[in-house]
Amino acid sequence: MAKVKVGVAGYGVIGQRLADGVALQKDMELVGIADVAPTLSVRALREKGMPYAFYAAATDKLAELEKARVPVSGSLEDLVKKVDVMLDATNAGVGVKNKELYEKYGKKGIFQGGEKNSVADVFFHGYANYEKGLGAQFLKLTSCNTTGLIRAVDCMDRAVGVEKVAITIIRRVADPGDYHRGLTNALQIDHAPSHQALDLMTIMPHVEATGILVHTPVTHGHIITIVMTTKKDVSPEEALAAFRKHPRIRVVTIAEGFQGNASFFRYARDLGNPRGDMYEIGLWEDSIVKSGKDLMFAINIPQESVTIPETMDGIRASMRMQEDRITATDATNANLGIGKWKDLA
Amino acid sequence: MAKVKVGVAGYGVIGQRLADGVALQKDMELVGIADVAPTLSVRALREKGMPYAFYAAATDKLAELEKARVPVSGSLEDLVKKVDVMLDATNAGVGVKNKELYEKYGKKGIFQGGEKNSVADVFFHGYANYEKGLGAQFLKLTSCNTTGLIRAVDCMDRAVGVEKVAITIIRRVADPGDYHRGLTNALQIDHAPSHQALDLMTIMPHVEATGILVHTPVTHGHIITIVMTTKKDVSPEEALAAFRKHPRIRVVTIAEGFQGNASFFRYARDLGNPRGDMYEIGLWEDSIVKSGKDLMFAINIPQESVTIPETMDGIRASMRMQEDRITATDATNANLGIGKWKDLA
Amino acid sequence: MAKVKVGVAGYGVIGQRLADGVALQKDMELVGIADVAPTLSVRALREKGMPYAFYAAATDKLAELEKARVPVSGSLEDLVKKVDVMLDATNAGVGVKNKELYEKYGKKGIFQGGEKNSVADVFFHGYANYEKGLGAQFLKLTSCNTTGLIRAVDCMDRAVGVEKVAITIIRRVADPGDYHRGLTNALQIDHAPSHQALDLMTIMPHVEATGILVHTPVTHGHIITIVMTTKKDVSPEEALAAFRKHPRIRVVTIAEGFQGNASFFRYARDLGNPRGDMYEIGLWEDSIVKSGKDLMFAINIPQESVTIPETMDGIRASMRMQEDRITATDATNANLGIGKWKDLA
Amino acid sequence: MAKVKVGVAGYGVIGQRLADGVALQKDMELVGIADVAPTLSVRALREKGMPYAFYAAATDKLAELEKARVPVSGSLEDLVKKVDVMLDATNAGVGVKNKELYEKYGKKGIFQGGEKNSVADVFFHGYANYEKGLGAQFLKLTSCNTTGLIRAVDCMDRAVGVEKVAITIIRRVADPGDYHRGLTNALQIDHAPSHQALDLMTIMPHVEATGILVHTPVTHGHIITIVMTTKKDVSPEEALAAFRKHPRIRVVTIAEGFQGNASFFRYARDLGNPRGDMYEIGLWEDSIVKSGKDLMFAINIPQESVTIPETMDGIRASMRMQEDRITATDATNANLGIGKWKDLA
Repeated sequence: MAKVKVGVAGYGVIGQRLADGVALQKDMELVGIADVAPTLSVRALREKGMPYAFYAAATDKLAELEKARVPVSGSLEDLVKKVDVMLDATNAGVGVKNKELYEKYGKKGIFQGGEKNSVADVFFHGYANYEKGLGAQFLKLTSCNTTGLIRAVDCMDRAVGVEKVAITIIRRVADPGDYHRGLTNALQIDHAPSHQALDLMTIMPHVEATGILVHTPVTHGHIITIVMTTKKDVSPEEALAAFRKHPRIRVVTIAEGFQGNASFFRYARDLGNPRGDMYEIGLWEDSIVKSGKDLMFAINIPQESVTIPETMDGIRASMRMQEDRITATDATNANLGIGKWKDLA
Repeated sequence: MAKVKVGVAGYGVIGQRLADGVALQKDMELVGIADVAPTLSVRALREKGMPYAFYAAATDKLAELEKARVPVSGSLEDLVKKVDVMLDATNAGVGVKNKELYEKYGKKGIFQGGEKNSVADVFFHGYANYEKGLGAQFLKLTSCNTTGLIRAVDCMDRAVGVEKVAITIIRRVADPGDYHRGLTNALQIDHAPSHQALDLMTIMPHVEATGILVHTPVTHGHIITIVMTTKKDVSPEEALAAFRKHPRIRVVTIAEGFQGNASFFRYARDLGNPRGDMYEIGLWEDSIVKSGKDLMFAINIPQESVTIPETMDGIRASMRMQEDRITATDATNANLGIGKWKDLA
Repeated sequence: MAKVKVGVAGYGVIGQRLADGVALQKDMELVGIADVAPTLSVRALREKGMPYAFYAAATDKLAELEKARVPVSGSLEDLVKKVDVMLDATNAGVGVKNKELYEKYGKKGIFQGGEKNSVADVFFHGYANYEKGLGAQFLKLTSCNTTGLIRAVDCMDRAVGVEKVAITIIRRVADPGDYHRGLTNALQIDHAPSHQALDLMTIMPHVEATGILVHTPVTHGHIITIVMTTKKDVSPEEALAAFRKHPRIRVVTIAEGFQGNASFFRYARDLGNPRGDMYEIGLWEDSIVKSGKDLMFAINIPQESVTIPETMDGIRASMRMQEDRITATDATNANLGIGKWKDLA
Repeated sequence: MAKVKVGVAGYGVIGQRLADGVALQKDMELVGIADVAPTLSVRALREKGMPYAFYAAATDKLAELEKARVPVSGSLEDLVKKVDVMLDATNAGVGVKNKELYEKYGKKGIFQGGEKNSVADVFFHGYANYEKGLGAQFLKLTSCNTTGLIRAVDCMDRAVGVEKVAITIIRRVADPGDYHRGLTNALQIDHAPSHQALDLMTIMPHVEATGILVHTPVTHGHIITIVMTTKKDVSPEEALAAFRKHPRIRVVTIAEGFQGNASFFRYARDLGNPRGDMYEIGLWEDSIVKSGKDLMFAINIPQESVTIPETMDGIRASMRMQEDRITATDATNANLGIGKWKDLA
């Protein structure tokens, strides 16, 4: 079977990881990536010897690209023509413009969480609503927090049924290397309910969700606490057993050394994962408690890389590479090496 | 009526504020404060002209104190002899030793939250269990987070009844000016349930409480989110109405400028409050949402000063200055200027 | 003699402190302050009972001001008409527009460091070039870093002569309570030479200055290290002796507890200074070393309040209240309580 | 020629990188690593499938290691017996005890910067004093800051001669993933002169050095500003030309995207470097200015990995694998891929 041809627009924090993720899928081919200027990431691509072909998403920085000796293989339009699917990881607002180009050539488009929901036909999550994405031309992925959160909620929903969740998102404000945004010695609160709770209800309309979001001045991952009302009473041990079976959830303990969000980053670096990335969310065994019949626990969201697997799932759905969520996510997981540690555990 | 004579052991972050708090109570007299060494706070006391008499809590730093020209009025024991009540704000572990001195002279002792619960006869909160403290020789105050949390829970409990709470504590790790502790670019998680939930149940045994605590690298106040199951269904508006009546709760909005924990500190500084302190907890109107029948909202805890009013209440209880919680807390509030803004609001 | 009438435009971080500073000057009268909207600072002014009259700097937020029950005494133009001098602490770019109003009524105007140098006739520092400001209609103050830096450089220049300085500015990126700017887990570098070095040369043209500025994610004060080539060789002890005589420089040691920038803030809070402000720069005795014949040392700049005394000096110069820098700065110092601690030391 | 057999004691931040570094040297063989407990790093080693043999440095955690299913190949003593050289990256104070074991078996030992200078015969830097290390049994490497600093100073010293340097070290306080140390919203100053300046003079006794160190709450690299008095006047362009030729110095610009310390980390991650490590120091072209005849500039020190190449050089010196610094450092550089980018630049 011919490999599905994929392009990536926007070679930033997410775009780079999407490109790497596609390159690892045996049934896909990364045709190239597109960006505007010789950013630090594009310069790194050049220093690595251009493993991915570069397409210029605009013409006004061509001189800069040449000065930085970045070989240009064509325009964004050239890239779009060559692919089956475009993964759009451009800045918010750009994707909706790029969409016109994808439409012009009848190509599929998968947008990241920063774009408005209206950009796509389906708001997508690989585990929670894979079937809705089957054959769709335009998908929009959930944001990093929502993607990770839904993994845990969907997992318990399939195990015992979930009625409602009340979440507290302790959000990192910037990625490592960001200077254009940040917070210094302050916790900032957003209007409740947080958009992540609302987004969860779009994907899982049978669950009631609300939540409060607090920004914190850190860069290595969000932490979410979840108070969950299940349909069937469930003990912490039963919940843990369910979580442990999920390929994209890593159950950890403080005693092992997972003291906080930065431990996942440290561990992923020590594992030798490219960029110190981790595809799985973390879930602390030490955090699971009961509040009456409700369950409460905390998860860790590696914001830079968590949406990569679900985006690969999105390609599978939109291209109908697999018809069901288990076969599709299994394929993604196998290619990304997700779940290997389970055999060791 | 003779004023109640009060001494303060430990002139650090809390001790200074206790001394100032006592000095403001018209029915109390601050006899003096005790500390070991010429710390920055003691040096500031000297530069201010020694408004409070200084007693040396140890003899091994007398030369240092003399070099720093801090006039010494006697020993800790001398201070204990002169007072009716000692407020102990020394480092954890010291209070239990000081207690022997308080016992020797038959004086009352009120310990701060850092000390072990066993140090005292009664674990105390001015609003929630004032009557338990009446006449007790030794009280221990709840910690800063628990003190503020109980204000909000007790408020709703008296209004509509509270069955259970599930809290997420987003904790500041250090006070402004701390160098001996801190966290850098990390969120750290503790074993659940957090001690604050357990402490709440000690004070309010009819409420079930659990929670997760996450340390964050900031200094200006904790934020706690609370998922609360009430006995009677309550709307956000009704809850707000109850909170607004509480003298030690300030209901605020993001639109006014209360964007996060640092806004309370900024506001208190702009108010001209000594040290930029605020005695009230903040409660965001924007944060109140319903999760099914449960209520969810967020509060802000000014960690340096929040326990001062409840400690004044503790003096009132242990010395039987007032026999009921309302008269007592009203007296404390009037002397500290708490609730004045309500008239303006 | 009639008091000099002063108004303040912009009641933010600096404007509030200017207003307080003027209110403390026995030979000045604070007529009022002007701002646009009911910011947190304006709300605090209201909660305090309007110690300063409020003038509306724009008409589009009058409804908001009324809703926040801020009594409005008139427009900015009304305020300008009533004063002799306007202190302009508005956001960069606004001052140049306000200047037209000051010109229309022939009033003096003193602008803060954020405004462009061209806004004023004279770039001013109370100690370094007081005489240049005498009678000038428009002055612009040096920025916080430059103001503090010049104190130290001017002090040594008058003592032994300064040929050149090479400075490293370790800059705080935000003020406590800021959310609109910040940096998270990063040190950011600016193009060299830093503007503070260039500004120093404008005020002290006989000194050669250069420097590198690094932004750090903290809020309580900048630290500057200075490598200084003096005309006459000077020992650390001689330098210290000169610094100790300067009313606006506080020589401190780590052993006393001044471990870093946050210690000054802590100390000022403990002193009971309004808002925890400190007018003096700190200078670490422990930091003074020799590099060959050069002197090297570190100072601390309390960014929120350091320019207040020099702005008071500016009023004195522009209104010719005093004719020489010593008489003028002495008057400012006496009114602000600067240097009192020297008698205690 | 037989490969030099190397072991690593202490598999923490530095130890892991030393092991990786040795594994990359074609003329060395990594026999194994030793640590005490199943730390996060050791768990990662296990998850990776034990690419390096593990030796237990103590017997009291064997049960824990077994529980974590870490296969143990023997004791630290077993490892020492098998190697020619031990790289000791244990916590300060442990290395001096381990030394007895190295002495017992007559093996070479190379200690990291945390250990006391007295632990070794020679205080070593690959570029500055390689010859001193030739054949020595015990070497101690300079610390991360000193290692990077000496690269730049030695480079200019060999180009034009250096008389003296006055440095300002803007130090990161913790590594990513650290919870046991940290600083929150504060800059902390150390007594001057900093040990790095003193250490530089031990390695380069003909240079006078002094400096001030300020701790900052960040994790991704130190920044050092250097005011350098050269023997021969040198322009910024000439200095840059010399720096550009040094294999372990990367000259960068803000315009390329190197806005601060976190950019190097970002770039190294984007390059796909294991753990996001960078062996080179960064040097900002934008930071070079003249202060009279002195040169001033800023460098960036990647604290986790900067000492790895110089430690490889240390193995070469102590084992007399190469007799001169250029041949030795060239071998290290070739094996670590250092300087490859120069061809691209």
